[in-house]
Amino acid sequence: MITEEAFTVEPWHVRETRLDLNILAQSESVFALSNGHIGLRGNLDEGEPWGLPGTYLNSFYEVRPLPYAEAGYGYPEAGQTVVNVTNGKILRLFVGDEPFDVRYGELLSHERVLDLRAGTLTRHAHWRSPAGTQVKICSTRLVSLAHRAVAAIEYVVEALDEFVRVTVQSELVTNEDQPEISGDPRVAAVLEHPLEAVEHEQIGHGALLMHRTKASGLMMAAAMDHEVEVPGRVEVSTDARPDLARTTVICGLRPGQKLRIIKYLAYGWSSLRSRPALRDQAAAALTGARYSGWQGLLDAQRAYLDDFWDSADVEVEGDPESQQAVRFGLFHLLQASARAERRAIGAKGLTGTGYDGHAFWDTEAFVLPVLTYTAPRAAADALRWRASILDLAKERAAQLGLAGACFPWRTIRGQECSAYWPAGTAAWHVNADIAAAFERYRVVTGDDSLEKECGLAVLVETARLWLSLGHHDRHGVWHLDGVTGPDEYTAVVRDNVFTNLMAAHNLRTAAEACTRHPEAAHAMGVSTEEMAAWRHAADAVHIPYDEELGVHQQCEGFTTLAEWDFTAHTMYPLLLHAPYVRLYSAQVIKQADLVLAMQWHSHAFTPEQKARNVDYYERRTVRDSSLSACTQAGMCAEVGHLDLAHDYAYEAALIDLRDLHHNTRDGLHMASLAGAWIALVAGFGGVRDDEGVLSLNPALPDGISDLRFRLRWHGFRLTVHVTHADVTYTLRDGPGGSLTIRHAGEDLTLSTDAPCTVALQPRVPLLPPPQQPPGREPTRRRLVRPRLPVSSQLD
Amino acid sequence: MITEEAFTVEPWHVRETRLDLNILAQSESVFALSNGHIGLRGNLDEGEPWGLPGTYLNSFYEVRPLPYAEAGYGYPEAGQTVVNVTNGKILRLFVGDEPFDVRYGELLSHERVLDLRAGTLTRHAHWRSPAGTQVKICSTRLVSLAHRAVAAIEYVVEALDEFVRVTVQSELVTNEDQPEISGDPRVAAVLEHPLEAVEHEQIGHGALLMHRTKASGLMMAAAMDHEVEVPGRVEVSTDARPDLARTTVICGLRPGQKLRIIKYLAYGWSSLRSRPALRDQAAAALTGARYSGWQGLLDAQRAYLDDFWDSADVEVEGDPESQQAVRFGLFHLLQASARAERRAIGAKGLTGTGYDGHAFWDTEAFVLPVLTYTAPRAAADALRWRASILDLAKERAAQLGLAGACFPWRTIRGQECSAYWPAGTAAWHVNADIAAAFERYRVVTGDDSLEKECGLAVLVETARLWLSLGHHDRHGVWHLDGVTGPDEYTAVVRDNVFTNLMAAHNLRTAAEACTRHPEAAHAMGVSTEEMAAWRHAADAVHIPYDEELGVHQQCEGFTTLAEWDFTAHTMYPLLLHAPYVRLYSAQVIKQADLVLAMQWHSHAFTPEQKARNVDYYERRTVRDSSLSACTQAGMCAEVGHLDLAHDYAYEAALIDLRDLHHNTRDGLHMASLAGAWIALVAGFGGVRDDEGVLSLNPALPDGISDLRFRLRWHGFRLTVHVTHADVTYTLRDGPGGSLTIRHAGEDLTLSTDAPCTVALQPRVPLLPPPQQPPGREPTRRRLVRPRLPVSSQLD
Repeated sequence: MITEEAFTVEPWHVRETRLDLNILAQSESVFALSNGHIGLRGNLDEGEPWGLPGTYLNSFYEVRPLPYAEAGYGYPEAGQTVVNVTNGKILRLFVGDEPFDVRYGELLSHERVLDLRAGTLTRHAHWRSPAGTQVKICSTRLVSLAHRAVAAIEYVVEALDEFVRVTVQSELVTNEDQPEISGDPRVAAVLEHPLEAVEHEQIGHGALLMHRTKASGLMMAAAMDHEVEVPGRVEVSTDARPDLARTTVICGLRPGQKLRIIKYLAYGWSSLRSRPALRDQAAAALTGARYSGWQGLLDAQRAYLDDFWDSADVEVEGDPESQQAVRFGLFHLLQASARAERRAIGAKGLTGTGYDGHAFWDTEAFVLPVLTYTAPRAAADALRWRASILDLAKERAAQLGLAGACFPWRTIRGQECSAYWPAGTAAWHVNADIAAAFERYRVVTGDDSLEKECGLAVLVETARLWLSLGHHDRHGVWHLDGVTGPDEYTAVVRDNVFTNLMAAHNLRTAAEACTRHPEAAHAMGVSTEEMAAWRHAADAVHIPYDEELGVHQQCEGFTTLAEWDFTAHTMYPLLLHAPYVRLYSAQVIKQADLVLAMQWHSHAFTPEQKARNVDYYERRTVRDSSLSACTQAGMCAEVGHLDLAHDYAYEAALIDLRDLHHNTRDGLHMASLAGAWIALVAGFGGVRDDEGVLSLNPALPDGISDLRFRLRWHGFRLTVHVTHADVTYTLRDGPGGSLTIRHAGEDLTLSTDAPCTVALQPRVPLLPPPQQPPGREPTRRRLVRPRLPVSSQLD
Repeated sequence: MITEEAFTVEPWHVRETRLDLNILAQSESVFALSNGHIGLRGNLDEGEPWGLPGTYLNSFYEVRPLPYAEAGYGYPEAGQTVVNVTNGKILRLFVGDEPFDVRYGELLSHERVLDLRAGTLTRHAHWRSPAGTQVKICSTRLVSLAHRAVAAIEYVVEALDEFVRVTVQSELVTNEDQPEISGDPRVAAVLEHPLEAVEHEQIGHGALLMHRTKASGLMMAAAMDHEVEVPGRVEVSTDARPDLARTTVICGLRPGQKLRIIKYLAYGWSSLRSRPALRDQAAAALTGARYSGWQGLLDAQRAYLDDFWDSADVEVEGDPESQQAVRFGLFHLLQASARAERRAIGAKGLTGTGYDGHAFWDTEAFVLPVLTYTAPRAAADALRWRASILDLAKERAAQLGLAGACFPWRTIRGQECSAYWPAGTAAWHVNADIAAAFERYRVVTGDDSLEKECGLAVLVETARLWLSLGHHDRHGVWHLDGVTGPDEYTAVVRDNVFTNLMAAHNLRTAAEACTRHPEAAHAMGVSTEEMAAWRHAADAVHIPYDEELGVHQQCEGFTTLAEWDFTAHTMYPLLLHAPYVRLYSAQVIKQADLVLAMQWHSHAFTPEQKARNVDYYERRTVRDSSLSACTQAGMCAEVGHLDLAHDYAYEAALIDLRDLHHNTRDGLHMASLAGAWIALVAGFGGVRDDEGVLSLNPALPDGISDLRFRLRWHGFRLTVHVTHADVTYTLRDGPGGSLTIRHAGEDLTLSTDAPCTVALQPRVPLLPPPQQPPGREPTRRRLVRPRLPVSSQLD
């Protein structure tokens, strides 16, 4: 757990003012830098101590066997695991003849700052060596958003009150030692020494190392070069070995003098390209980095981020913690996706090895909705990645005896890597989530070129999957059996409402897309009859509803299952303390499921149904998944429990800055960080798009005085400024000059000429705020509900 | 597959007239000898070739880790695997200087005979060595039913047309090489070299080897001694090493002269006893064997079997294959159980390593019903084993967050070893099956001393399990969710009819037993309120029924699931060709489930319901489990499909003699072999006991002219002789001299004074014979439906 003292609350920075080795692994995740292609955990420059040393390349993975004591047909035999690649972050410092190590000598001050506008991680250390010599170290690290293959570090050492001889070893290190794996099944397996040396050479004031994975046969190159500035004599030498390259800089510094090293890093990998081609690719990137120079890289980084924030920023007045957290989340979302370029966006981005580095439905369901509104090019690239694995998904469907395509529940490269089918293969909804992400991209951007390019095939093949998965009963009602919805505490059921609504949407969307692209559809063998069958199934889909209780059933029969005994089970997450067989058969919910269905298919539920359903499911949801709080925020806001929604929004946003799920050490929770935006924008902004129209219905909780957020819609850039009294829509620019949106259910036409302000009605909830299971109330916002001082209590 | 030529059809023998190395592994299972404590596969005396070398001691196992790619709470971490112990069967023969090996030289004749009355395996071989020397070898092997720790072999070599120097090496061999494991998940893991040497010593004309398992820490001793008879000079020498003891006999034989060796074997193991104690135990058993002598062992064996057959024999006129097969099955059932003495009866007995040597519900559900009527002492011992692991079952229930006791789905020692919970932990019915076996023992024997001794505690703790598993819905109906019934193609469901009826029976039986033993119940904390809660749940249990179709639902909603596409899936067993998630959500049934419920709870269904249910479920049952055919036989007979029932009875009976499931190599199918008896006695005899009364209602298929079977009931011995015209009940002896049974629904009082003959009415089925899924018709009885010769077809 990270206490609230760990990082100061500032609008644009995450600042750690003293080094706490107990949360080193967590801070490495928080301070991770990435551009979606290269990921560097926030490890200390000098390499140790570490919580988890980590350097990652998107989709660079190793294959490992998946063992089963009792195997079954269709179980994947091989898994894919993210690999800790050659570490280029290391700069070891010797002060005199003593190594700079924060565990020795005296750390007089230590500060690390993640700057969300500069896109850099800066560290200031003031250290007294065991021999009493003081130095100041300042390093600044960036992973370039503008130059995909490049990272760089500025490393400055300053002598203070005496002359000191300074030695810096700047390294590339392959096959670093890793910590032992935890017993928690959610933590990724750690692979030991996964890389085989291919080539090593010295280049300029640096070196290049090439390695290959043993089983997956991927080749990578890492290269470094250096600029050194120092008054007086300096010697720079480099040697390279198979798993280690080292550039050594040695000089003497008088008090006030500084040694400044710029370390340029270039990374590349390929499954296809030859050794010389890959070697030259890394060398070229390195040359490019030197050509830009340190300041050039800094400037390009800031320009990239200025552009991003201009379209994406969310301003939260009155709640500085959420303000910081939502920007922190957006920053990491951008880092995970900016230059992923047709590679997967993992659940942890490139910030750690959690979940083996796999991508799940999280991407399409939580990350892409945010990117589609804020960085649509990154969203399109992520969707192109999905389309690129369509053939693998078709093979998987065929293996399962199904038509169409079945996308993997968890994967890096595209093959199914889920070893537990009730919460993997049976979670078919991932296919509809992907289809919906394509459709959302089209609806929000107004651009159907991506659909034409690759989305149509995905829509058609996923529709075919659904048709072969479902069946019409003897009364013509269409059912989906053997289905696991988002809630992983209720698995392999009939007619999960979320899945059924998503499948119906997938079927209808595919039919509509085929109508838009008749020739391409025809070429895929789609007939009028097939489209009719899709629409017929979608229209006949069963949505279970409990008439007696007046609530929807998360799945058939759900509301008649045994109630979970929350008083007998007080250890969370429940999955580590109770067997699946008991969880599955009780009314206990891991994460928003029906509630998510109501957010995404808002028009399929009446306001009263929403209010009653939220009330029912709140009492049974334990939020053992990090994907839940943001959705609960969104729907609690809609039904009028605004303060509760604020609590959930806080929980989603602060998940990693406060380590609320106790596993930030393994990497950041991209979906929950995206959820912070969703909670604010879809929750308090009331943004919905499920009817193809940009629809808003804002309402703020007491703890937020002003909320300002930006959206892109059909080429328009829109700013929404919500207060308790009114909302102001500012159409900044866009095609044609006017845009019709829906505000509180009524059409409203906006013009680029002038902002439009509308008064807000207070939101009155139908029901009182619901209770959560005992002990599972949302993490309260500390600033909003401070403990009363003792004297007040006595009054 | 074993063709019908492999074994001749004889009433009391299983004879193989030529050695077919292609079915060597299968014949090793068929010719396995055991007494329930020691098991010897039918390996050739000379040790090789083999299909699977096998020597087993009941409950002597090794622990192995159970791996999971994604583990979950409550998954067992360690499995138990039967160990191939020290092999005492080996007698290697050298003819001149050439080893006797059936793969070399010329095998002029070779015959093996399993004698079901003598309890021996005899082998005759006539061999010409590569050098042209002819010998005859005759060996007879037995595992003593009368002396639990003893096996013996008579080995005779005869010189034929020339003088020959003969050398025999009689051995004890530990840690034999094993074949590689198959990819089929049903085949047991084979452990390599599982035994560590503890002690070896020479004793008499033999030796003793002691070993210990590495992980489970069990110690075993194997000892051998020899008697040698030969005209002329003979030298006998023995040496012993840690993993090998060898007694060498060398002599010369003139034509017509014979060397005769009697090899006595003794085995023992313990988890507790000291090395000297165990050593002396084996030595004492060996001394006892020599004291009995070979003829004494043969005589005792036959006497034991005479007694068994007198109570157990079934005579089938008109169907010699089934006649042979049912006796073969009863013989192996006796072998698996006779001297198991409070150890588990594994699904394969001690005939192979299939299913890791584990015991399942098969024991209580199929094996014990037969033993209870034919060898009740063995049944009582098996039940005492279950009672002995009650504490482990209570620990397991507590681990799962449940009350009472949860018995393992598969185990050797008592700990849960099932690594796939949907077909393991969720198959809660095993607990009710065990309870029912206790109750059946009480009902059939009329003896409640076993209940008092240990059954009551089992009944109470299993009832407590059920009450904590189930729940009353808001209308008071009692449901069981998260349940897998016998059918493993439909898992983790609501209200499986079989499970619900069994649970209700368990609850009621426990309440009644507590009423019979009030003080013992009170000591277990059973209150009047608890008993009332049991009865209340049992009375409120939900039995799903499809009103529209007029059939019961195997589980809630079953009849509304998608129909399985049998034309698209033609490879069996389906579990090797389709994923569970698809099987579970379709109307495809692995094995009798609702149909078994109707057999065991006959009174809970009307005749019309039975007919309609059989008709419905026959069409959807693929019999991928060997536990199915016998039950289908029983219920098809009851509803009047007598020829179809005969086909199923044949399939159950011939499973191993014809290798119908292609895995007889891994051991025999004890439950199916028991099922042969069940199919004849419960099927054509119509025996039921679910209302506490011995009830019969016989009817024969066309292919059987006479059926005669014997039962024990309340101390009576009853013979039932069924023809197409009538049935004759002969009460041979018993307490009081008269017994009231129920014949065709009417009470009938029998007397030991005279047989009672009753005319039979022809059984008229309500519906025409049902179809099975395409290609899944029962294996037809070849003798009944011979192919017409070509000439006839031309007529």
